[in-house]
Amino acid sequence: MKPTATLLLHCPDQKGIISELTKFITDNQGNILYLDQYVDKQDGMFFMRIEWELTTFIIPRDKILEYIKTLYTQRYNMECSLYFNDIRPRMAIFVSKMSHCLYDLLARYKAGEWEVDIPCIISNHEDLRYVAEQFNIPYYVWSINKDHSNKYEVEQAEAELLKKERITFIVLARYMQIISDDMVKAYPNHIINIHHSFLPAFIGARPYHQAWERGVKIIGATSHYVTAELDAGPIIEQDVVRISHKDTPESLVRKGRDLEKIVLSRAVTKHIERKILTYHNKTIIFN
Amino acid sequence: MKPTATLLLHCPDQKGIISELTKFITDNQGNILYLDQYVDKQDGMFFMRIEWELTTFIIPRDKILEYIKTLYTQRYNMECSLYFNDIRPRMAIFVSKMSHCLYDLLARYKAGEWEVDIPCIISNHEDLRYVAEQFNIPYYVWSINKDHSNKYEVEQAEAELLKKERITFIVLARYMQIISDDMVKAYPNHIINIHHSFLPAFIGARPYHQAWERGVKIIGATSHYVTAELDAGPIIEQDVVRISHKDTPESLVRKGRDLEKIVLSRAVTKHIERKILTYHNKTIIFN
Amino acid sequence: MKPTATLLLHCPDQKGIISELTKFITDNQGNILYLDQYVDKQDGMFFMRIEWELTTFIIPRDKILEYIKTLYTQRYNMECSLYFNDIRPRMAIFVSKMSHCLYDLLARYKAGEWEVDIPCIISNHEDLRYVAEQFNIPYYVWSINKDHSNKYEVEQAEAELLKKERITFIVLARYMQIISDDMVKAYPNHIINIHHSFLPAFIGARPYHQAWERGVKIIGATSHYVTAELDAGPIIEQDVVRISHKDTPESLVRKGRDLEKIVLSRAVTKHIERKILTYHNKTIIFN
Amino acid sequence: MKPTATLLLHCPDQKGIISELTKFITDNQGNILYLDQYVDKQDGMFFMRIEWELTTFIIPRDKILEYIKTLYTQRYNMECSLYFNDIRPRMAIFVSKMSHCLYDLLARYKAGEWEVDIPCIISNHEDLRYVAEQFNIPYYVWSINKDHSNKYEVEQAEAELLKKERITFIVLARYMQIISDDMVKAYPNHIINIHHSFLPAFIGARPYHQAWERGVKIIGATSHYVTAELDAGPIIEQDVVRISHKDTPESLVRKGRDLEKIVLSRAVTKHIERKILTYHNKTIIFN
Repeated sequence: MKPTATLLLHCPDQKGIISELTKFITDNQGNILYLDQYVDKQDGMFFMRIEWELTTFIIPRDKILEYIKTLYTQRYNMECSLYFNDIRPRMAIFVSKMSHCLYDLLARYKAGEWEVDIPCIISNHEDLRYVAEQFNIPYYVWSINKDHSNKYEVEQAEAELLKKERITFIVLARYMQIISDDMVKAYPNHIINIHHSFLPAFIGARPYHQAWERGVKIIGATSHYVTAELDAGPIIEQDVVRISHKDTPESLVRKGRDLEKIVLSRAVTKHIERKILTYHNKTIIFN
Repeated sequence: MKPTATLLLHCPDQKGIISELTKFITDNQGNILYLDQYVDKQDGMFFMRIEWELTTFIIPRDKILEYIKTLYTQRYNMECSLYFNDIRPRMAIFVSKMSHCLYDLLARYKAGEWEVDIPCIISNHEDLRYVAEQFNIPYYVWSINKDHSNKYEVEQAEAELLKKERITFIVLARYMQIISDDMVKAYPNHIINIHHSFLPAFIGARPYHQAWERGVKIIGATSHYVTAELDAGPIIEQDVVRISHKDTPESLVRKGRDLEKIVLSRAVTKHIERKILTYHNKTIIFN
Repeated sequence: MKPTATLLLHCPDQKGIISELTKFITDNQGNILYLDQYVDKQDGMFFMRIEWELTTFIIPRDKILEYIKTLYTQRYNMECSLYFNDIRPRMAIFVSKMSHCLYDLLARYKAGEWEVDIPCIISNHEDLRYVAEQFNIPYYVWSINKDHSNKYEVEQAEAELLKKERITFIVLARYMQIISDDMVKAYPNHIINIHHSFLPAFIGARPYHQAWERGVKIIGATSHYVTAELDAGPIIEQDVVRISHKDTPESLVRKGRDLEKIVLSRAVTKHIERKILTYHNKTIIFN
Repeated sequence: MKPTATLLLHCPDQKGIISELTKFITDNQGNILYLDQYVDKQDGMFFMRIEWELTTFIIPRDKILEYIKTLYTQRYNMECSLYFNDIRPRMAIFVSKMSHCLYDLLARYKAGEWEVDIPCIISNHEDLRYVAEQFNIPYYVWSINKDHSNKYEVEQAEAELLKKERITFIVLARYMQIISDDMVKAYPNHIINIHHSFLPAFIGARPYHQAWERGVKIIGATSHYVTAELDAGPIIEQDVVRISHKDTPESLVRKGRDLEKIVLSRAVTKHIERKILTYHNKTIIFN
């Protein structure tokens, strides 16, 4: 694996941006491996993902962001972030009682599908400790009391662990609890949730029962970044499966499990590959 | 085409119903061509569609319903309807300005895909008269004034036409107007609408714009029977298509058109084939 | 879980079969929980799956099959099999080097999704022993020499293990080796394979490379029962995913993995639930 | 609609191409509306589609191609084609006896969905003349004798008509006859066919019957450019629909019709929008 840099950026659309940025990389001996861009005509915004090889790149890697900021940020009113492929993101998984998403994530991790580290699994229940143990990953349990008296302490403890483990993003793998506002603020567009419905249909609790009640002919699952508002953050990926009148709420739960784990893992893949840009509560997902 | 009878029924689930009904048909020399049944365990309800050849059937066709009612209706607390395949349903189409669903319906009709008659097309605009003329079908226009002063007259005129033409069911092929309560009552579960979203997401106006605003990754279309509550009737069929951040509200409209016409025509097919049972605001759709 | 019996049968289509069989069960105090039937008009064949509660059933369970055979088998020229829901099928998994299907099967097993026992995993490579160990399932490795000199011994050893463990069906979870004719004969329509293409397209080796070479826009996966002819057995389930010109053979492999595991697990589910009938190299799959 | 130019090109991948071309357009006061590019790493080929507004563009439109060729073609070993959005492609439709694809194409044309002209419909049968007449499009019938004695004359007559009508591309809307090699040569990658299977499965005649025979669980349709080899040209678009054991060859034909018309029309849309590049018997389809 050769070292590469990946630049994600967005700014108001102007003539010459692509030309200028590709010239900057090419002139400095960077070999562009990937370029994808998108213009939102409605908002007049320009989005780009560009990845290039660092081996022959003239600018040292710890100076690249500085150069880009100096040369372009102010001029184009640009927001950007820079990633290196040899610095692996560190992912924390939150779970409650259902194992299907957790197993799917860990099986991919163990098989080496992802360039990611998973230093910890956090839960409000003991139920899935055996899964964590099967994969030799530390499992932490903090339960919030019914009267919420220890809510603050729990959130503090979780925040500390995330900090200590240098977690860069969080995956809620059917974690049946609301994430605190502080955590959402600490990880803006870096907490991925899986909701077991085709959002915005069936927000909130028991979406399969809601779907069955309404008599829909297709059910879905939605992975999205978590924001302050419940199930309303930027959607990363959705998928659906056909059902019929023969399905019961229980069979919807069963069919939905396969959707949930695949849709969640697709979102995690895109996040790890730094192919997601967020803007105005939507995502731009590059191929 | 040999003459057949089709019985659609539902009743509380009890032992022996299938056995009894199939025996009734078999004993009277009816050859069963099709039997499908479904038990809703939650509600304890039994649903069945059974079709048999009439050629050798002992009971004369105008007596069949009487016999079934006498023998089974009260005993099983059964609701049922009986259809003959040589009595074609008569369908009225309501349209506004968009032609894609109308063309799709008429092309199928003209190609002989359906055992149906289409004696009239009704609209609130002149726009699609040329389509009706291409297919030689009478086209009626009634516009409701802005102040709604002629609303009652229009509805009366439409109702009369439907009666005169012995219309058995109505298809709203992107008809952008609310159907009157009286018409809904006159055609309970016999008015099919196409809504251009994956219901219950994006009820009401401009669903593609709502979808684009929310940033969904999949859009849908839903055909359903019309009830008093907007976009809340029993769902017959849904389908979806994948979209991306590159789509605009305009491209959603474009992609959605293909969905709408196919989803609407699938519902019309099932209705014409008498393969839909409705119960508690849901549909049972037999194969 | 109340004890139930499930009868799967097929015979030439004749009047009165359903009526007779449902009457037989009802008369003997069996409560029918499930009935699905299908008539193949082309071949004039009748297929049925019927499940009923045993608690109140008058005929003792070890006599049921005898009664059915005596009363109906010869008369209707019927082939049938009878299963009890409290006798769990015993499944052997064959694997080579790829873990995704194996993990998916074991995660479902461990989560209690299936009424099945998995007493052994068999491989031609050591690679996946760690997965078997994570789930505490005995892992057996037999490699066939390059000169095939030990082929007979290996097949004998495998056959003995299957016998010793009273294996009722086999799942090939990306097992990259041809199954011997003897094993196919010993488990007719009881060996489930996953082929990583939309069969019958791209039979044989490296189907993703074949698909990429041909420039298809959709790839698929197919689960089927193994017969003597390669990739030609009765198809149980297929699914597909959309691809584009941007995909490489490697990305097809990656996208295909998700398809493969889901399509294989759906087939295994249907098999465990005894909802598959095979006839003339095709499957009838009941809901 | 403002006038735009669209450049489609491919060449061996080299540093700086995008940068150079976007700079060329920007420096000459062209406002880039659309840029999409793709690099085939395996073959080391670069593909691009770029569209820009002509209103302020300094180079006159009849000189643009000359400039691009002089400046870049030889240097980059580039193949390219240039289109203007105000010069509409001219499409000929070939049909036999089935109307569904033809109706779908004409309904879109009539509704103004496409920037295209359709000056003629050509057939080997009289059957669909009424459809052409409904839409006021000249309909030409040439039948080849059973002994093929008039084959050459027919092909000559067709070729003359295509020339006279300045046809730029051909759509085979379920045209059940082999296209002559001369016509394929005259319209390389400009004849679009719809094949009623998921290619490369079920090449040739009666694919639905082949699919039913094989017992597949999903059927498909494929639109592709016609080449000398039957059903083997570059695939433009495919789609599928789920079927079951309950389907007959007849119901496959019925379900397939909806697929065919949608898949064909999607391909025609992409072709009209000049979003298809072909290379090595594959297509690059831009969004």
